[in-house]
Amino acid sequence: MSERERPIRVALDAMGGDAGVTAVVEGAAKLSLEERPVQVFLVGDETMIGEVLARHRYDPAWIHVVHAPDWVRGDEKPAEALERRPEASIHVAAELVKQGEADALVSAGSTGCTILAAGQRFERLSGIRRCALASVYPTEQRHGARGDPFALMLDVGATLNASAEDLVGFAVMGSAYARIISDNDSPRVALLSNGTEPTKGTPAIVQAHRILSGMPGLNFAGNVEGLDIPRGTVDVIVTEGFLGNVVLKMLEGVSEVVVDLAKDAYARKFLYRMGLTMLSQGIRQLRTMTDWKQYGGAPLLGFDKVVIKAHGRSNARAIRNAVKVAAKAVDRDLAGQIQAGMVGADGA
Amino acid sequence: MSERERPIRVALDAMGGDAGVTAVVEGAAKLSLEERPVQVFLVGDETMIGEVLARHRYDPAWIHVVHAPDWVRGDEKPAEALERRPEASIHVAAELVKQGEADALVSAGSTGCTILAAGQRFERLSGIRRCALASVYPTEQRHGARGDPFALMLDVGATLNASAEDLVGFAVMGSAYARIISDNDSPRVALLSNGTEPTKGTPAIVQAHRILSGMPGLNFAGNVEGLDIPRGTVDVIVTEGFLGNVVLKMLEGVSEVVVDLAKDAYARKFLYRMGLTMLSQGIRQLRTMTDWKQYGGAPLLGFDKVVIKAHGRSNARAIRNAVKVAAKAVDRDLAGQIQAGMVGADGA
Repeated sequence: MSERERPIRVALDAMGGDAGVTAVVEGAAKLSLEERPVQVFLVGDETMIGEVLARHRYDPAWIHVVHAPDWVRGDEKPAEALERRPEASIHVAAELVKQGEADALVSAGSTGCTILAAGQRFERLSGIRRCALASVYPTEQRHGARGDPFALMLDVGATLNASAEDLVGFAVMGSAYARIISDNDSPRVALLSNGTEPTKGTPAIVQAHRILSGMPGLNFAGNVEGLDIPRGTVDVIVTEGFLGNVVLKMLEGVSEVVVDLAKDAYARKFLYRMGLTMLSQGIRQLRTMTDWKQYGGAPLLGFDKVVIKAHGRSNARAIRNAVKVAAKAVDRDLAGQIQAGMVGADGA
Repeated sequence: MSERERPIRVALDAMGGDAGVTAVVEGAAKLSLEERPVQVFLVGDETMIGEVLARHRYDPAWIHVVHAPDWVRGDEKPAEALERRPEASIHVAAELVKQGEADALVSAGSTGCTILAAGQRFERLSGIRRCALASVYPTEQRHGARGDPFALMLDVGATLNASAEDLVGFAVMGSAYARIISDNDSPRVALLSNGTEPTKGTPAIVQAHRILSGMPGLNFAGNVEGLDIPRGTVDVIVTEGFLGNVVLKMLEGVSEVVVDLAKDAYARKFLYRMGLTMLSQGIRQLRTMTDWKQYGGAPLLGFDKVVIKAHGRSNARAIRNAVKVAAKAVDRDLAGQIQAGMVGADGA
């Protein structure tokens, strides 16, 4: 990381996550012992947080507990819950960022609550009309300087009816994020469509194709098709949120099914079972590779603040990764990078 | 099959398919030797067809060659090619069906040409405003009386902006087709959306949900999500063509990538290679299971005639299956079944 006056500070909602405070607090504890820790504000019930902290080694210099007396429950509707619980941990954590006490927000709570709490407090970057939730997913081809087996897709936030301008904004934001997080100098960005020709797709896709083709700072690769998603032909795939949401959930389902099918095929005969013993490590590798929930989190892009949504089922390692990703995005000025990338986005 | 006065007659475009006439003619030859053959009109260049027939055993009682002096080339644009080549094999084959000389049309040529040639000659069923291309795809769960590892998805034809009425029509057509082809008395049909609640999705999806819920003859299972596609939670998934097209191509890509990844993981160490030898049959099973191109074809639903689009890469076995599927659809009166299923489709 670059030379900074002070460490990067991340507000971490300790009460999100399907497993309660355990994994979140443990993730922060692990991170505090690393060589380059991040200043973490653990926001939530201080008694519950304290109990978990007491069971783990951690460096108290890098963890500050910020008490929030309330939190959103897993089965609550986001909008109602946020209104009914003004002292919920996600509110308190987002407010820390708004007030400049912290630089980024990380939550493993509900996506809806995270988006709403951010939207109530943070400003949208100029020229960005709609924020997008992005997600990494596993691909066959490698990406960026580190050879990550992951590409980025956005929007996966299930918003409907993205306009051409929205798609252009998604492309710029995705490119900036991939550049920063995957150490990819010039990420290849493409629109998801039903054919590679510039005329294929909805009117919004066709128009976005035209605008993106004329943007100097973007490595625009045109349209890609469904086939290119698992192959990883490009580094960033841009699509409307509804489609992105379906595709992402489908990938999650496929990874489950593939492991099941493989196990089933191997278990059927004795020879297979012998082979299975030898191959268990191979199958584990395959599973690890397709279990992208382990890696980082999903950035909510388009705000002037960094927001990372960690998966609800995050373990401690995933939480630690999400906080590190947030810190990296702050350190490398994600918002500034997005803003700089919007040159030509008006199609002029 | 039921007792019929005369055998079912299928017009088969012999010039479609990426490998030229070879696979198509061989498929017809194989079928003619089966216990319950189908009357096949092989439509195309009679010299080329004759050359292939001469190399295979077949029963001439079940194969009639119908000469067509021209055919659409693989790289031509469908609309232009069909206009420029009035004597193309797909025109001649479709015309045989229109004139009542044949009962169904099967082609391994371009999807666009097949749809256009059918659309120029066949009538849409009453109440069906938009035809749909359906495709089977492999799932974890089994379906129907025979335990098929395939579910049906439609529309995958890349048409944009399906209305609620279009989606309702797709549901009825998919249900009828699954009932006939998969021997499934009461196929579970669902809308693809971004959540299972009836309020999730585009306005068209929400309205289609409401109409489908009130239709007596349909086993409507509500909304399913991306996760449910590979799992095979339902027998028929209904979606707009653009999304269906992306999803289907993605599944095709996933099956390729999974086999590659598995081989890669196994090949990495000597022990894995030993296991690989033992497991090769298991991997082959997995590949067969995910290679749904081997099975039947994609029905083009909504016309008063049966139309089956076989995959361009079909081998002889896939062609034979596509013709048998077409014959089964004629035998069990697919058009009548669809028409009967439309009760309540007006939302009244």
